[in-house]
Amino acid sequence: MTAELMDGRVVAKSVRAETARRATAFRERTGTAPGLATVLVGEDPASKVYVANKRKSATAAGIADFHRQLPETSGEEEIAEVLETLAADPAVSGILLQLPLPGGADPGDLIELIPATKDVDGLTTASQGLLARNQPGLRPCTPSGVVRLLQEPGIPLTGAEAVVVGRSELVGRPMAQLLLHEDATVTMAHSRTRNLADVTRRADVLIAAAGVPGLIGPQHVKEGATVVDVGIHRTAAGLVGDVRTTEVAGRASRLTPVPGGVGPMTIAMLLANTVTAAEMQYPDSTAEGR
Amino acid sequence: MTAELMDGRVVAKSVRAETARRATAFRERTGTAPGLATVLVGEDPASKVYVANKRKSATAAGIADFHRQLPETSGEEEIAEVLETLAADPAVSGILLQLPLPGGADPGDLIELIPATKDVDGLTTASQGLLARNQPGLRPCTPSGVVRLLQEPGIPLTGAEAVVVGRSELVGRPMAQLLLHEDATVTMAHSRTRNLADVTRRADVLIAAAGVPGLIGPQHVKEGATVVDVGIHRTAAGLVGDVRTTEVAGRASRLTPVPGGVGPMTIAMLLANTVTAAEMQYPDSTAEGR
Repeated sequence: MTAELMDGRVVAKSVRAETARRATAFRERTGTAPGLATVLVGEDPASKVYVANKRKSATAAGIADFHRQLPETSGEEEIAEVLETLAADPAVSGILLQLPLPGGADPGDLIELIPATKDVDGLTTASQGLLARNQPGLRPCTPSGVVRLLQEPGIPLTGAEAVVVGRSELVGRPMAQLLLHEDATVTMAHSRTRNLADVTRRADVLIAAAGVPGLIGPQHVKEGATVVDVGIHRTAAGLVGDVRTTEVAGRASRLTPVPGGVGPMTIAMLLANTVTAAEMQYPDSTAEGR
Repeated sequence: MTAELMDGRVVAKSVRAETARRATAFRERTGTAPGLATVLVGEDPASKVYVANKRKSATAAGIADFHRQLPETSGEEEIAEVLETLAADPAVSGILLQLPLPGGADPGDLIELIPATKDVDGLTTASQGLLARNQPGLRPCTPSGVVRLLQEPGIPLTGAEAVVVGRSELVGRPMAQLLLHEDATVTMAHSRTRNLADVTRRADVLIAAAGVPGLIGPQHVKEGATVVDVGIHRTAAGLVGDVRTTEVAGRASRLTPVPGGVGPMTIAMLLANTVTAAEMQYPDSTAEGR
């Protein structure tokens, strides 16, 4: 068997096109475009590139750009004031506070100033509670992008055995919740899991989100499984994921490449979340919904 | 093998005694006892018994009693006003809205009026978000009672394979989160799980919370496993759980009886939550904490 590659670039392009159509419909209905506010504190070069990409992609999808650049020296009160102003602004559908903050400041309390209805990163306690309760809300972009990647080729999730390796707050744990809501039987594995390969070999759908380069080899994969690699690590040999792709390709039936698998989905889902946020804030009372 | 029975009455008694000591210490430090407000709408006989038991147990633990009885005809606004008054009352540490409401009214929006710091049932979106994030907060009583039952005899959870059968919002899903935070490898199984016995036989710790009488038989249980039965069903043959206890006792090493297993833990954890809520609202600035 040689695994079919699941091309995140193609699916992300389709999500972006769909998002642009929804943004247009929203603008025609309400008279204003959905708006995304990106808040960047300081001059970290990587963060600047990420934010620039998000703004460019948002603009291309017909989402209005509300960028706030704050000086590296900004105190918590200044950042809080900006977030509160954006929270109260009806033209701003979604708010994104680019992390990390300068000097490793704890973003905990600041993030909570973003209302759940504008929390396009799905980071806040309220958003995570809505996810746990399976209530409507905004979901973290990377795990919801993985679900979309799996749905695109019609990979069955109901009753499937799904194993998520890694239990981070932003990827592993919400990933497990989303797969549970898709009716999969879900196992959460992590650094304290014994006999990891025995656990992961049960998976019809294996999500590697441990943040450990090359953790998952062929001995971890059931013949014919679908393997999604959320990891991305810069090494001397180039970008690698949590999965030893070449070796695993002989056992898996489907596999996401790194780069070009999960990565492109994250920004696409951020844009989709922004339009969803706009739609939640201005529900269409004349329609049954999408 | 004949399973050792895990006596919830004994552990609950020890939790209640510990809670009473903490309530006394709180009263000596702050000058007022922790307070529990029970809100009962209507005259449902079962609900009246449950609330009476909770109030009696709270009083016995040194917790002040703030009971509100509302007429069956109360509208949402009247219930909301009572909850908001209790939310603002500094003498009230915890608030419990007894469910179900008369006529099957949806308690969703009303529950959300209880602040997370007073949410002793752990029901609100905010409480569930704090659980998902593994941040300090009040946890649902039944699943936290199960964790306590497992901890008492020192059953190892780190790296253990735990399987939770049932994914209800109030038991199964928070149960899985709590076991994950205890470093278990956790599988969430449910009605859409295929080959349930194959999944449950992996469990070192099996939690049956499906709400299906007698669902779990010996074929579902690994030799030597710990089996916790959260189910409780009134049948012609008396009270039974989700586990066929007599049959499973030959394979499990430890087993909770029904009644007298998980049941008694729920009220005990409610009392513990009430004192925890009081301590969170009036933190002891002179101590390092318990």
